[in-house]
This record gives sequence, C-alpha cells and structure tokens, in this order.
Amino acid sequence: MKLVRIGMPGEETPAVLGEDGAAFDLRGLTADIDGAFLASGGTDRAARALAQGGLPLLDITGLRIGAPVARPGKVVCVGLNYRDHAEETGAPVPERPVVFLKDPSTVVGPYDHVLIPRGSARTDWEVELAVVIGREARYLATPAEAPAHIAGYSVSHDVSEREFQLEFSAQWDLGKSCETFNPLGPWLVTPDETGDPQNLGLRLTVNGETRQNGHTGNMVFDVAHLVWFLSQYMVLHPGDVINTGTPAGVALGLPHTPYLRAGDVVELSVDGLGTQRQTFLDA
Amino acid sequence: MKLVRIGMPGEETPAVLGEDGAAFDLRGLTADIDGAFLASGGTDRAARALAQGGLPLLDITGLRIGAPVARPGKVVCVGLNYRDHAEETGAPVPERPVVFLKDPSTVVGPYDHVLIPRGSARTDWEVELAVVIGREARYLATPAEAPAHIAGYSVSHDVSEREFQLEFSAQWDLGKSCETFNPLGPWLVTPDETGDPQNLGLRLTVNGETRQNGHTGNMVFDVAHLVWFLSQYMVLHPGDVINTGTPAGVALGLPHTPYLRAGDVVELSVDGLGTQRQTFLDA
Repeated sequence: MKLVRIGMPGEETPAVLGEDGAAFDLRGLTADIDGAFLASGGTDRAARALAQGGLPLLDITGLRIGAPVARPGKVVCVGLNYRDHAEETGAPVPERPVVFLKDPSTVVGPYDHVLIPRGSARTDWEVELAVVIGREARYLATPAEAPAHIAGYSVSHDVSEREFQLEFSAQWDLGKSCETFNPLGPWLVTPDETGDPQNLGLRLTVNGETRQNGHTGNMVFDVAHLVWFLSQYMVLHPGDVINTGTPAGVALGLPHTPYLRAGDVVELSVDGLGTQRQTFLDA
Repeated sequence: MKLVRIGMPGEETPAVLGEDGAAFDLRGLTADIDGAFLASGGTDRAARALAQGGLPLLDITGLRIGAPVARPGKVVCVGLNYRDHAEETGAPVPERPVVFLKDPSTVVGPYDHVLIPRGSARTDWEVELAVVIGREARYLATPAEAPAHIAGYSVSHDVSEREFQLEFSAQWDLGKSCETFNPLGPWLVTPDETGDPQNLGLRLTVNGETRQNGHTGNMVFDVAHLVWFLSQYMVLHPGDVINTGTPAGVALGLPHTPYLRAGDVVELSVDGLGTQRQTFLDA
C-alpha cells in the first residue's frame, strides 16, 4: 500500500493510492499521516478501508505532492553506509554506523524546489532509502525485532553542502540542515509492498545524466541492523525518519563533476518507491 | 517574565509566574507554550494579561514542572564555545561555531529523572544557557538582528555520553541524543528580565560538589553571533532551542573525576533563570 499527502505545504490531505494509481481520501480516518496515525495502527485501518471500497475518490490532477509523513520528530542519517560510497570519499568502511542528524524542518515534498544556500559552492546530491518508524523502538534486543517497528519506506534525497559539512567543522550537521535539503516521497510504501529492503536499486540523474546507480544490497549495515543499533542510543518514535546512506556517485567522489547550480534538475528513484524530481534554485 | 509549563508529561498547563512566584493559568490565551504561541506574540499577550490581573491563579504545589517549551522542532548545540572548556578537552578554540544537533525528543523537565544509557560508562554533565527562538530567523544580515528573533532564555542540561559521542564515530550526535538527555527549564525567561545574556554565571554541582562555575562572558561566539551564524545555514523556527555550549568542569576534562552513576544528583543553575535538579537512574 502507498500512502501519500497531497496539497499545499502544511495543508496536505492524507490519501492512499489504489492499485490503478487512483487516490482515495483518508480524512475520514485521520487528519494527517503522522506519528500518531502510524503508532495507532493507521496503515492497517487505511488498508481495510481501501479494501472495503468506501473511501472517497480524490482528484489530484495538478496538485502538489507533499512528503508522505507530516512533521517527523527527527531525521537520523547514517553516513558512509555503502561500501562503494565510503571508498569514493576516501573514508574507511566504518566499524559502527556513523550517525548524525538533520534538521527535520528540511523535509519537503518530492517535487518541491530545492534551494542552494547562499555562499554555497558545493551543493551535492545523495539518493537514499528512507525508513519511517511506525512503533516506538527502544533497546531492541536483536535486529530481528526491527521490522515490527517499521511503518514503511520512502525515497529520500539527503542534499548536502560539502564545504559546510566537511570544512567548517568536523561535525557534519551544518551542511545537512539547510532549508529544503530533505525531499521525501512521493509515497510511504508499506513493508509488504516494498519487499526485501536489501534488494532495491537506487538511481539518480543530474540533468538527465546518470550519477548514482546503486543497490541496497551493498549497504554496510542493513536496515534491521540500523534500527536495532539506533535503538540502543536513542528512542525512535513513530514518524521518525532514518536516511540509510547513499551509494557511490556523489559529486564529492567524482573528480571534475560539477556540483549543483541553479537550474539543475535532479531526478532520483528507488525500486518500487517512486521517483522524485527537483529543480534547484538559489536561496 | 517567566513562562512555565506545569503537569504530567504531555499534559502540561501553560502558566506565567507573577512577581511573588505565584503561577497564573494561561489556558485562556493558549493551549500550550510552543512555536505557534511564541511566533504570534504570545509572550506579549501573556505579559498584558498578567499586568491586567485577570488570569486565574494556579495551585502548583507538588506538581511536576515540564520543559518550558513544548515540542521544540530542533535542538541545535554549539560545541567548544567556552575558551576554558575547549582547553580542558584538548581542542583548539574553533574558528567557527561547531554545530551539531540533538534529538528534540530528549527534552524533559528540569526535575525529571535522567537515564544513564545501557552500556554507558561515561555519562557526563554540561550546564548551558539555552536560547529559545521566537521568530523565524533566515539569513539574518547581521548579529544585531538576532535579538528580535529570541523569545527568551532557559537553563539547559546537555547531558552527554562521551564514549558514544567521541569513540563510536567522529560524529557527536549519537552520544547527545539518548533518552532524557536534555532537561530544560524551569522557566522560559523573556529577554527584558534576563538582561545581558553575556553577563550570566552558570553553576553545576554533582552530589553537592561544585564541578562547573562559569560565565557566559567567556563564550567564544556570543548569543547574537550564534543566532546570526546559524541563520546562514539553517532556518531557525519559533520554539527551536539553541544550547550555546558549556564552560569548563565536565568529567571529560577533569582527570580522576568519576562520570555519573545511578543515584547521583546533579544540580545546575544560570543566574536569573532558575535551578534544575536531576537524579540519575539506570535506563
């Protein structure tokens, strides 16, 4: 099942997609797709309502698609989590997940404009598989417990400013938290429909040229391990988002490949989770 | 003026303190003290209502005090921002603010228990001056613009697990985001009552022994500079919290001083902003 939020920023209508792609209004079930909805079995209720055929059809022609989760409490990012990406950045494959955070107010819709920060010369792309938490995860005993805490998956664009991230201090968050730097969506896809999260291709193009073409099978730490690991150090709440790392092919790792400039168009997708497309503009 | 939130977690009543310390109920003005309240001139409305004498008195005897701001969208932290603390940790005084983020769900009340994470051997204290944002700050032209974007100040305890922070990877957030790791409060004190934010003493004791005794005059980057600087790289939203760094005297910098263990009591205060007191327990 695919959950989606449609409409202007802050006024999105929660909806579910039928098999033919038609959108059905979930406002009879919930005001929004957020942590409270996910924690209370909302995806199951949406699935039942969809199956029963009682949901009103929504005409979404021409409407904006928002991020599929409203107001994540936090966005946790995992760095250097693909062997090929660790290599291209010259970093060793880490022994433990490298964890940092992104300002959750950076989350925007999958087709929204992304702003290149003022003073930026090195705005870079990163296609990622996002995990959306559905149930509180705190000190999970084993990675095998992780799937019960996952509401679903989405495409995430972990946009990064490399000078802010790597040169202004040793802490990366500054280059990860710029306005509009986390397009998310188009859909929140439930685990039954996503299939094995370690068997997904990820792709990203800049102005039509392929830059990233990776596979979640190359993650250093898989999704279940990440959820288990993070739960030892922080409480994961429903609606929280985990960006699970990016494969090789970012500008940082590609000599002579230009960083992003105003007018550039980035398109990215993950198998089964849909496609994003952003035009970059100057802030 | 001092704003305060009183009651059980998630059910706090917003209130304002009168000059004699009596609490007055703000529920006639707002459902909570949060970003929307602060952004809409809520502190001015509360001040007028308090002056007019029409607010109902609240009996708060024996009631829990919560963090004075509900659900901060983000908690931004500034590392190594006191010359004496940079020295004690062996780090050079930074050229630019060292910025990292803390999971905002770590924010708890000033007298709540703090949990020592499982597997922790190095849970450490940090008294800090917290800035609470009152108006969106985005690309401020100069530090002189910062004060208009500040709703007020509070005491913040930036609890830190040093092994998670410094040894598990080069990124600090993992050791900063453990459950209950950010007691905030007791009050949100408006700028007129706080006075010069660079003229405040900060103190912290562990089981009655003084560990930190600093002064905001020793900040490397002052509050106005921090708000201006951060606004160049991220959008600061009403209700966001900035932890402005800690002075010398943390366990990390004190040889032969034990880290925190279950049963320890930490008391911390900032001039004019009140006192926190937490008992540490095992998670």
